[in-house]
Amino acid sequence: MTEQYIQKLDQLDQHLTAINYSLALIEWDSRTLASKKGGEERSITVGAISKIYFEAFINDSTKETLDYLNQHLAELDDIHQAKTIYFTKEYHKISKIPADEFAQYTALLEKSTEAWEEARTKDDFSIFAPYLDQVIKTLKKFIQYRGYTKHPYNTLLDDYEPGLTVAVADQFFTNLKTKIVPLVQAISQKPLPAAMPVATYPVDQQAAFSTYIMEQLGFDANRGTIAESAHPFTLNLSRNDVRITTHYYENDLPSSVFSTIHETGHALYEQNISDRFGFSQLTSGVSMGIHESQSRIYENNFGRDLAFWDRHYAKLQSLFPEQLGTLALADFFRAINIVRPSLIRIEADEVTYPLHIMVRYEMEKMIFSQEIDVYDLPRLWNEKYQQYLGLSADNNAQGILQDVHWSAGLFGYFPSYALGSAYAAQFAHHIGQSIDIKNCLATGDMKPLLGWLSQNVHTYGSSKTPAEIIHSATGQDFNPDYYTDYLDRKYSQIYEL
Amino acid sequence: MTEQYIQKLDQLDQHLTAINYSLALIEWDSRTLASKKGGEERSITVGAISKIYFEAFINDSTKETLDYLNQHLAELDDIHQAKTIYFTKEYHKISKIPADEFAQYTALLEKSTEAWEEARTKDDFSIFAPYLDQVIKTLKKFIQYRGYTKHPYNTLLDDYEPGLTVAVADQFFTNLKTKIVPLVQAISQKPLPAAMPVATYPVDQQAAFSTYIMEQLGFDANRGTIAESAHPFTLNLSRNDVRITTHYYENDLPSSVFSTIHETGHALYEQNISDRFGFSQLTSGVSMGIHESQSRIYENNFGRDLAFWDRHYAKLQSLFPEQLGTLALADFFRAINIVRPSLIRIEADEVTYPLHIMVRYEMEKMIFSQEIDVYDLPRLWNEKYQQYLGLSADNNAQGILQDVHWSAGLFGYFPSYALGSAYAAQFAHHIGQSIDIKNCLATGDMKPLLGWLSQNVHTYGSSKTPAEIIHSATGQDFNPDYYTDYLDRKYSQIYEL
Repeated sequence: MTEQYIQKLDQLDQHLTAINYSLALIEWDSRTLASKKGGEERSITVGAISKIYFEAFINDSTKETLDYLNQHLAELDDIHQAKTIYFTKEYHKISKIPADEFAQYTALLEKSTEAWEEARTKDDFSIFAPYLDQVIKTLKKFIQYRGYTKHPYNTLLDDYEPGLTVAVADQFFTNLKTKIVPLVQAISQKPLPAAMPVATYPVDQQAAFSTYIMEQLGFDANRGTIAESAHPFTLNLSRNDVRITTHYYENDLPSSVFSTIHETGHALYEQNISDRFGFSQLTSGVSMGIHESQSRIYENNFGRDLAFWDRHYAKLQSLFPEQLGTLALADFFRAINIVRPSLIRIEADEVTYPLHIMVRYEMEKMIFSQEIDVYDLPRLWNEKYQQYLGLSADNNAQGILQDVHWSAGLFGYFPSYALGSAYAAQFAHHIGQSIDIKNCLATGDMKPLLGWLSQNVHTYGSSKTPAEIIHSATGQDFNPDYYTDYLDRKYSQIYEL
Repeated sequence: MTEQYIQKLDQLDQHLTAINYSLALIEWDSRTLASKKGGEERSITVGAISKIYFEAFINDSTKETLDYLNQHLAELDDIHQAKTIYFTKEYHKISKIPADEFAQYTALLEKSTEAWEEARTKDDFSIFAPYLDQVIKTLKKFIQYRGYTKHPYNTLLDDYEPGLTVAVADQFFTNLKTKIVPLVQAISQKPLPAAMPVATYPVDQQAAFSTYIMEQLGFDANRGTIAESAHPFTLNLSRNDVRITTHYYENDLPSSVFSTIHETGHALYEQNISDRFGFSQLTSGVSMGIHESQSRIYENNFGRDLAFWDRHYAKLQSLFPEQLGTLALADFFRAINIVRPSLIRIEADEVTYPLHIMVRYEMEKMIFSQEIDVYDLPRLWNEKYQQYLGLSADNNAQGILQDVHWSAGLFGYFPSYALGSAYAAQFAHHIGQSIDIKNCLATGDMKPLLGWLSQNVHTYGSSKTPAEIIHSATGQDFNPDYYTDYLDRKYSQIYEL
């Protein structure tokens, strides 16, 4: 009997994973190669395939299977326990919202995103405000349908970072506020190091460095590829086909270099999930935060370290002899670690970045705690930027309208960006207990680092919670001090504080 | 009542078209970008989505809708008449074969294709023979399920070229045999013109010419794109997203030039289907033969004409000044129109090409007329090559094992390649009655030519049969004399016969 239900679960899993493969490929295509004018047919297709997914998943047969397996959880092996838990959670998340209301919401998000684009272009918040208001009201209703523990915002946080609560996030951001706001202020008193030389960095040469550095980090080119898109991203069709994109600006070399390293970090996660799960929903990164920990540890903890460039700077110079031939390694290192408060999140450096996230976290928490007049939000935004970063935008386009997330209903998403960096610091600290990281970076032997991450993080896919992964990998619960200690130590040295 | 069924038909059409979009994108990806090692997951996905297609299409609701609409065909507008006819035919084609037998056949084809690859690599027909035997036996059984009129092979011919019968094809190939075999023999007596200069033609420059010539021919770059693949092909996700591929060999410039022109001909067809049908199965080329007529008319009738290169040769020379700077236009023209019998179909010139098809047609017709010992086929193949082309391969790898088609069950497909060229000649002849083709080619004003083809061929998509399109476009039924007359006239002049 149990065997039959296990088989049904496995079949459902593979079937849904196949449908997701198809949806993922359409997304990949739409962001890399699809024609300008093919959007309408693509949108119809995504709607049709999404409906097929919904109907294949949300039905009495699935419910019966999950009910049975939940009652017999102790009899299952670890993989099927994990699958049962995973699909039960997904089932509840989707099935509690009436299908017609969800369809209306999806339509609202399309209009809302269009309104946001127009509002940002025209720098006119009032174009976006009524849609934002509707999105927030709908999400509040959905939270009521889905239920919540302690704080309504917890339900949204959990969507992107399973297990994350306001209690944990508050502790994390309080620590940031106490330690990083003063650090940024101290750095701001110091003279600004010289930036990268103003020069033209040919795209072909940048692409050659992308290929080089991906290979150096351990990306398996037989199980994935790289392409270009406006905003870099990573996407997995399966663990055997993981793609990243980057972007090339002729005048900005570090942009492609660190985008490529960042996305390669994401890709290494997906490529090194165990094949025990098969073609399964479990064969995918567990959460936004853990995913971001893998991209950030490569981008920042490894990729912005002096030892890393001690190894790879000669290669970069050989590709750009005229532009970098006379720039010393020490100057290059300082240029890629410049810290300065700025208004735009995606352009922020390693130290100020989490402060941008803190602004958004505090606003989201407030939005889902109380009745809010959306027209008050721009003022609140600017006040918090002034408070934490010492700056405020003189227009909303560079302020509250800079991110697409809220127009797309992605509330609860932002905190995972900052958490990822904090997880990365905790992982890096723990790796340092058994592996000489600097030596790996300096010699270019990245295998021990990838080995540790694969064995302690990647391999589990979505079969463990973020908290379980952190605890089993580091021997303790998530502790945000590692992050602030790391930033303080690294940047106190660079800026001689 | 009729309105309701029309609506059901439209919904079904759009739904199946969306599922096809997804399958087409997976195919595109697999042939251009997909990872080497991602094949297994892709295969599972294609299986799952194909099953979804089957279940969405073959069911009582579809049958009821089609039955009703067929009984009320006279009440329907032209679009819904065409849709009813199209889907009724497809329904019968699929539903008459038991689903489990079809699944077994699909599995057989995978193994058969693998066996063919191994057989070709090792030049050992016996590795492939038992699979070929099974494929043929299965197709014969399917023909019994599906029924046939007059000749069993007609059922297969109709799959690729609706309406094509052995009677029509016999007439076509007899005409070829009578006129083209002697033409090739006469040309072979003449001295061989000089070939293209042996040189390195950088890929970037070849790609620049691809972009140039596509635009010149009228390809809409906002509704499609170009990429690279081992074997060039055209694929449409919708009329607003039509993609072609080409291949670049550093030592072979004409290969990419004529591949790009050929595929652009296919793409122009797809891009210029009327938007009256919406996102529909009708918004796609009607048959292999008509499709090939559009690629061949651009590749050969237009693209290998002296007037065409009178216009574009200077551009080609400017991209390859060292390689082509001293090659006169007249010599270039002769080099791209060299005629010589050869063993390999896909490398054949315009004149000998249909003789390769004739060999395959005669063998397929025989295979489906009588009991055949597959081990006799290599001998028959070589005898026919000797008879029609004056050559025979000393190994099967360059003989009967050269094409993938039979291993993939594609019997009935080959004739459409040659028919396409013949349709192209008939279209070109008729266009010449009202438009000065040479003048269009010489001035680069391709609009009148594309206009005629769009208005008389492209616009209909799959809403008319090939025979209807030919008749409405040219005022007469298909007449193979136009093709042989064209070849005779063009090559008698070039070779001064």
